[in-house]
Amino acid sequence: MIRPRKISQAALQQLAKLNHKKFRRAQRRFLVEGFHLVEEALESDWRIELLLMTPAVSLKENGERLHERAEKKDVEVAAITEIEARKLSDTVTSQGILAVVQVKEYAIESFWPAGKRRSVIVALDGISDPGNLGTILRTCDWFGVDAVWLDPACVELYSPKVVRSTMGSIFRVPALPDADLTPMLRLAKKNGSKVMVAVPTDGSPIPLAAYPERSVIVFGNESHGVGAGIQREADQRISVPRIGGAESLNVAVACGVIVGVIRLSRGV
Amino acid sequence: MIRPRKISQAALQQLAKLNHKKFRRAQRRFLVEGFHLVEEALESDWRIELLLMTPAVSLKENGERLHERAEKKDVEVAAITEIEARKLSDTVTSQGILAVVQVKEYAIESFWPAGKRRSVIVALDGISDPGNLGTILRTCDWFGVDAVWLDPACVELYSPKVVRSTMGSIFRVPALPDADLTPMLRLAKKNGSKVMVAVPTDGSPIPLAAYPERSVIVFGNESHGVGAGIQREADQRISVPRIGGAESLNVAVACGVIVGVIRLSRGV
Repeated sequence: MIRPRKISQAALQQLAKLNHKKFRRAQRRFLVEGFHLVEEALESDWRIELLLMTPAVSLKENGERLHERAEKKDVEVAAITEIEARKLSDTVTSQGILAVVQVKEYAIESFWPAGKRRSVIVALDGISDPGNLGTILRTCDWFGVDAVWLDPACVELYSPKVVRSTMGSIFRVPALPDADLTPMLRLAKKNGSKVMVAVPTDGSPIPLAAYPERSVIVFGNESHGVGAGIQREADQRISVPRIGGAESLNVAVACGVIVGVIRLSRGV
Repeated sequence: MIRPRKISQAALQQLAKLNHKKFRRAQRRFLVEGFHLVEEALESDWRIELLLMTPAVSLKENGERLHERAEKKDVEVAAITEIEARKLSDTVTSQGILAVVQVKEYAIESFWPAGKRRSVIVALDGISDPGNLGTILRTCDWFGVDAVWLDPACVELYSPKVVRSTMGSIFRVPALPDADLTPMLRLAKKNGSKVMVAVPTDGSPIPLAAYPERSVIVFGNESHGVGAGIQREADQRISVPRIGGAESLNVAVACGVIVGVIRLSRGV
């Protein structure tokens, strides 16, 4: 068993502030929690400042493994008590393991896959539910979406619920918060991309083939959809055909169907 | 303005019990909450025992409209206070309008669309997250899935969170809880259906065409997938092709992609 270092109460109080958006934004770092997410963070190229674990976790096989993995990456490991873990935790039942992660500063090119012949970008206009945003990122990761643009009205990308719902995909999909969508969509069109805005029911039914090589798909707020200003930038308004009676599809499901069909239509 | 009747404290205490699964199961009725869900219930062929609204709701245009709609259907309307509404409510902020709904007793044929040349049934093996179950029902409703079978390990269908997540689709899609999946899948196969079990990664990649006329698609628990016993009933194991790095798709998203592609491949 490897013994982690102690951490001061003052340092812990600073970390607990990361449960507030204001401090996450100011400090450009956030907490991730639980074995799976911490492992995903350690396996990624995001910078981990500190790994925190309770004695119970240190004694577990996967706790020890993550400790070793952290040391190999020169990530400091600190011991916290169960009570401290609960204070840092966003969930009711803490797993006793957390990591402090620095927001990755992507090169701007990461959000503009200009060098690729084929690309799919997902743009989000005011997604408000953290679970939806996280699930959209997870779905985009699954289908190898090149980048995700989030306008400022979206729920905060680094909030604990969003991060948890991504199941680690936040560390793989280039996601750009506070994106100014209108000029970005215009530039994308100039560069040969087709802008498709997803609307619940009255758009063109999505086909199973013949998608453009480069596309940006826009999804909107759960209640109000894509704003009128953004809709004006659309080359096409598209909908998933409805056969039954539901008023709308969940936005993450709609994203999965549309992006999935585009990917499948290309023979993957 | 129409004045609703008063309701006794004893009656309210009985209704508050419907926030517990035990009483919902015993009484075969459940509460639905909020304008949208209450409206969906009133528009459906499910039997509404009672509509409850606060004075503030009665004064609103849509409250009055729902009151009138209820009276036309011979549904009794009772007045409750804001405090009583909060006691009955599962949510932090009650909208002040609830309905007591009887579980619809479908004819068994509703779950066996034998008369149809083409059918899609979704079978669920241990879906544990209420939001996922509700979103699956909403997705099945959108795509006109003929029936949904739920094995006993699934989260309870009439729990407030599931009902809310269906966005009203619970009143449209025939959903059978406590289904004994193994014999049902065997019977479906005898009747000419193809059983396809969705697995995260190592099944046959779903095609964009050539689906059987009649199919049952099985989706499994969020962590453990479809159980081994059920997997043995599969004619085929299928997966949504992965291009990126996520370990799995959310089960409601996977359901949307698979059912959506089947529906789209038939020209809808």
